[in-house]
Amino acid sequence: MKRISPVVKIGNVKIGGNFPPVLQSMTATDTRDVEKTSAEVLALHAAGAEIVRIAVPDFESARAVPKIFEKISQKNAVVPLVGDFHFNGAEILKKVPECARALSKFRINPGNTADAGFLEMLEIARKFEKPVRIGANAGSVAPEILKKSKNLVDAVIRTLEISVAAAESINFPADKIVLSAKLSNVLDTIAAHKILSEKFPHALHVGLTESGSGLGGEISSAVALGILLHEKIGDTVRVSITPRPGEARTREVEIGKQILQSLGIRNFFPKIVSCPGCGRTAGDFYQKMTAEISDRVAKNFPIWREKFSGSENLKISILGCVVNGPGEARDADFGICLPGRAENFALVFARGEKICDLRGENVIDEFWHLLERFVAENFKK
Amino acid sequence: MKRISPVVKIGNVKIGGNFPPVLQSMTATDTRDVEKTSAEVLALHAAGAEIVRIAVPDFESARAVPKIFEKISQKNAVVPLVGDFHFNGAEILKKVPECARALSKFRINPGNTADAGFLEMLEIARKFEKPVRIGANAGSVAPEILKKSKNLVDAVIRTLEISVAAAESINFPADKIVLSAKLSNVLDTIAAHKILSEKFPHALHVGLTESGSGLGGEISSAVALGILLHEKIGDTVRVSITPRPGEARTREVEIGKQILQSLGIRNFFPKIVSCPGCGRTAGDFYQKMTAEISDRVAKNFPIWREKFSGSENLKISILGCVVNGPGEARDADFGICLPGRAENFALVFARGEKICDLRGENVIDEFWHLLERFVAENFKK
Repeated sequence: MKRISPVVKIGNVKIGGNFPPVLQSMTATDTRDVEKTSAEVLALHAAGAEIVRIAVPDFESARAVPKIFEKISQKNAVVPLVGDFHFNGAEILKKVPECARALSKFRINPGNTADAGFLEMLEIARKFEKPVRIGANAGSVAPEILKKSKNLVDAVIRTLEISVAAAESINFPADKIVLSAKLSNVLDTIAAHKILSEKFPHALHVGLTESGSGLGGEISSAVALGILLHEKIGDTVRVSITPRPGEARTREVEIGKQILQSLGIRNFFPKIVSCPGCGRTAGDFYQKMTAEISDRVAKNFPIWREKFSGSENLKISILGCVVNGPGEARDADFGICLPGRAENFALVFARGEKICDLRGENVIDEFWHLLERFVAENFKK
Repeated sequence: MKRISPVVKIGNVKIGGNFPPVLQSMTATDTRDVEKTSAEVLALHAAGAEIVRIAVPDFESARAVPKIFEKISQKNAVVPLVGDFHFNGAEILKKVPECARALSKFRINPGNTADAGFLEMLEIARKFEKPVRIGANAGSVAPEILKKSKNLVDAVIRTLEISVAAAESINFPADKIVLSAKLSNVLDTIAAHKILSEKFPHALHVGLTESGSGLGGEISSAVALGILLHEKIGDTVRVSITPRPGEARTREVEIGKQILQSLGIRNFFPKIVSCPGCGRTAGDFYQKMTAEISDRVAKNFPIWREKFSGSENLKISILGCVVNGPGEARDADFGICLPGRAENFALVFARGEKICDLRGENVIDEFWHLLERFVAENFKK
């Protein structure tokens, strides 16, 4: 059962309550660079980020925020922007009210905020009617709390307890608070969020922080977030990986979508079931066909999505031989079972029924045309 | 708590009981090609596969199996080979006993095996003292079972119940049986394995089958296996992704290692904690440094592993600024906190204590040399 938190409005996006988790991301550009930062916000949004955070480390960045907001609005994109504040957040928000106004949420790190600064930020949030994320990171818990705690998880939870108590002491409303506990270890992350979800009623932002780059960061993020989301913990989600040089920043958003889709929480694109191939599949044709059809689906889906309602729920199966091929096709909307070494034709299935077989050199193109027709006929607007 | 299954010996590898999960993989080469298949077995083994499966679809493949076994033994590799049988397994094993002898386990798919064939395969396994994997796949459950079942999960479980009952009826021992339920949907996979782990005492092989290619296959495999392994379900593990053309078959083994390592179940290589970078990190130097150090660690680790015992447990942190940099370094063995836009030097930490700062152009090389020295001094044989 999902724990029902208060609904929090972040700009036009509602989270918590019975809403499914939304995806967040963050820019890596210098916030003072309005052009680059607004372009990155738009790119992240186009990739699927429903909320985008930007760092606001100084006054100049703060003065850029309303300009970024303006640029984005000109493109008709409605993306709530979250300001990331550390050390000097209260001072910045006080002196640059147009920054506070342009943001849809303030992210406060109590470990990097003096006690007075924390309450001051909440008062500014109240004045501008903005929600806050109170996010404790293992990397920035206060030394005096760390000393009293039995481990990092405990220290992060204690930090949040103190912060929530302080917010309650000034009657800061629960439906303007999102909590997060960020740790770089998968087991700690899971443990901390389970405690959080039991101790607090608030909406939760979940993520594995500083998970690294490449396969290690991607897989550990999927494992940590998969476990939490499967237990219905998490109202907003961020995947934090270090991009390789040249790697698109949007990759973290793609991973977030895959995690949510894998658990059936939200569907973003058609699903393709395909086997790993083995000694039964002849040569590498099977791999080529899977890659080619996957690429064509990815390329055409933006068009399908506009034209064919529900096409994100399409399930395609591409299997290498008859061991599981016809069976998986039975469970898919549209499928093909390639010939293993023993046969010389491929079987095509629609909604589990065999519709034809394909022979010869043009199997990929012929299957693709049948698939396109199937989509057009079965997912009409 | 881990459910304690009987220990099953697969060649020289013990699984079940209190043993941590081992990694399995499968060749995609034509088994009749002894050269290519033994080379792929060795490559998968070198990447970390502790058990390797090969398809045995026909007599010619079966006759190649002892030759593959021979080739591998000549390279001093001890890799248990599992034969993958469908439709004609009993016939093959009966007529090619040298194949049965060379294998360390037979994989039987009851959905693709006539009832008599199934019992016959068990009798051959008993005669050669080999364990079996009884693996029901959603794609190959018998139509008459599917008809009676309320869904695919139910059909797969029923299939296994019938098979286990048949094995028990001829007193086939539980410590020679590994069970698996393969489904291509993450939620079904989780549900089926939870039921399996409650219904049966046997060792379990876990995997998400036919998960697809690229990011989709990788993330959904990590989510499914992460959830199961976190619940202590799984004695052997396989990641089944479709390689992109040209992509190494060993990638599935790398993903398997990352899943186990992310949950702290087994450590295979040093862990690198690194943040995603944001508007506080100046330019792309941070990404370059993370990529460069990650690559050098990956390249040097095979040497470290030989020379420095326990170096697979090393934890390195590379953070972009002081927001969480010193804190994460405190929790790592060796770490660096790069200057954000405000500072012009990087802080280096060993076991949480600051040891020096680095300035200028050669930060990457200087940090690398300090790290190499740290490893040499702290992980002696």
